[in-house]
Amino acid sequence: MSATLYYFDGRGKAEIVRLTMAAANVPFTHEIIREKKQFETMKADGKLLFGQLPLVEYEGQLLVQSGSMVRFFASKGNLLGSNEQEKLKIDILFEGTRDFNNFFMSYGFNGFNEVLDNAKAKALPKYLPIYNSLLNKNGSTGYLVGSKMSIADIGLLEVVLTIEELLGEKELEPYPEVQNFLKNMKSNDLISNYLKSELRPRKNDEKYVTEVKSVLY
Amino acid sequence: MSATLYYFDGRGKAEIVRLTMAAANVPFTHEIIREKKQFETMKADGKLLFGQLPLVEYEGQLLVQSGSMVRFFASKGNLLGSNEQEKLKIDILFEGTRDFNNFFMSYGFNGFNEVLDNAKAKALPKYLPIYNSLLNKNGSTGYLVGSKMSIADIGLLEVVLTIEELLGEKELEPYPEVQNFLKNMKSNDLISNYLKSELRPRKNDEKYVTEVKSVLY
Repeated sequence: MSATLYYFDGRGKAEIVRLTMAAANVPFTHEIIREKKQFETMKADGKLLFGQLPLVEYEGQLLVQSGSMVRFFASKGNLLGSNEQEKLKIDILFEGTRDFNNFFMSYGFNGFNEVLDNAKAKALPKYLPIYNSLLNKNGSTGYLVGSKMSIADIGLLEVVLTIEELLGEKELEPYPEVQNFLKNMKSNDLISNYLKSELRPRKNDEKYVTEVKSVLY
Repeated sequence: MSATLYYFDGRGKAEIVRLTMAAANVPFTHEIIREKKQFETMKADGKLLFGQLPLVEYEGQLLVQSGSMVRFFASKGNLLGSNEQEKLKIDILFEGTRDFNNFFMSYGFNGFNEVLDNAKAKALPKYLPIYNSLLNKNGSTGYLVGSKMSIADIGLLEVVLTIEELLGEKELEPYPEVQNFLKNMKSNDLISNYLKSELRPRKNDEKYVTEVKSVLY
C-alpha cells in the first residue's frame, strides 16, 4: 500500500518520516507544497488536524505529527525493537537523536553559518561521544540496539548525514564507531536506494527558505 | 515494583511522567534535586544518559526522555490503545497535547504574565477548539479515543489543569466538552489521589525558578 507525503520541497520535519518509510519498505510519493493556496486548501478541507505539515495519507488515514508517523511506519517494518527492554532503549535513543537533530532544524531559517556554529559548539561535543560510546558497547552489530536496525539508528543516521554534508566528514573523525555506523547504514539497500532517489530533498538553501516562508506567512 | 523519579521540585518535563505513572498505577517516590552538587554527582555517576532530568529508576533501569517514559509506563497501564488504529490516533493526539503544553513550559522562566499572554493569544484558540471537537466526536465516553483512558487524555489533562489554575476556568467555558472531560478525569480515583497527594508539585513560582537555575547554571 502506497503512502503520500505532503510537505515543502525540503527535509525539515518530514525527513525522519521519509527515512523511516524507506527503511520500513513502505513505498511513498511526495506532494510538494509550494504555494500558500495549497496549504490553505488543505487546512480548509480539514486534512491537517493541527494546521501543520507534514501530512501522510495512508490507506485512507490522515497521519500528522512526525514522531507518531515514525512509530506507526516503524511498527510495520519491525524497527521498534523485539522485546520490552529493546523497545524502551530504542525509544530513548531515538528521542535523543531528535534533540540532537533539532540543532540543525532551523538551518537557513536562523541563518546558515549561525546554525552550524551553534551546533558545532553545543550539539556535536554533547551527542557524538554518547552515540559513539553506545555503538561501541553494542559491539560489531553496526546498530545502536540489538542486532538489527531500529528507529534509533534511523534517527542517528539523519543527523550524521547532516553533519557529513554541512560540516564535513572531518567532524566525525574523532568518533570511529559513528563513522562505521554511517558506512554500515549507507550500505543498506533500502536506505541507499532512498538516498539516491529523487525523493531525498536537497539541503536547505535560500530558495527553499523563501518558499517555505511564503507558504506559512 | 516502585519507581523513583529524580527532578526539580516542580512540574516541568516530569509532570506528564508523574501523571502517567499515577494513571498506570505505578507507585513512585520523588527524589528532589535542589543543589548543583546533586545534579553533578548524578552526571558523574553516569546516571543521566544525555545529562538531563527527569530520570526515573525502575527495576534497575535508568529511564530518561519524558516521551519514552510516558510510553513505557503507559504500556504497563494499557493506556496506549487497544488496536493499531487506536494506537495511531492516541499517539497523534498525545503529541498534539505536547505542543499545546509547551506554551506553558517556560512559565516563570520567560516571565509569568508574558508566557500566559502568549499562550492565551496563540495556544488556547488553536488547540481548545480542536480537542473540544475531538471529544464531541468521540461521544459521551469522556475520553478522546475509544471508551477508556489513554495518554491522549493524560496529556490533555495536564494542559487543561494548567489553564484552569493559571488562567482560570472561565477560559474553558466556550469548550463544554473540555469542561466535561476535565470533570470526568478529575473523578478518576488514580488521578484524583495523585492530584491531592504531596507528589503533585505546586505551580512554578520565583523560588522554584531560582532553584532550577542554580542547579543548571
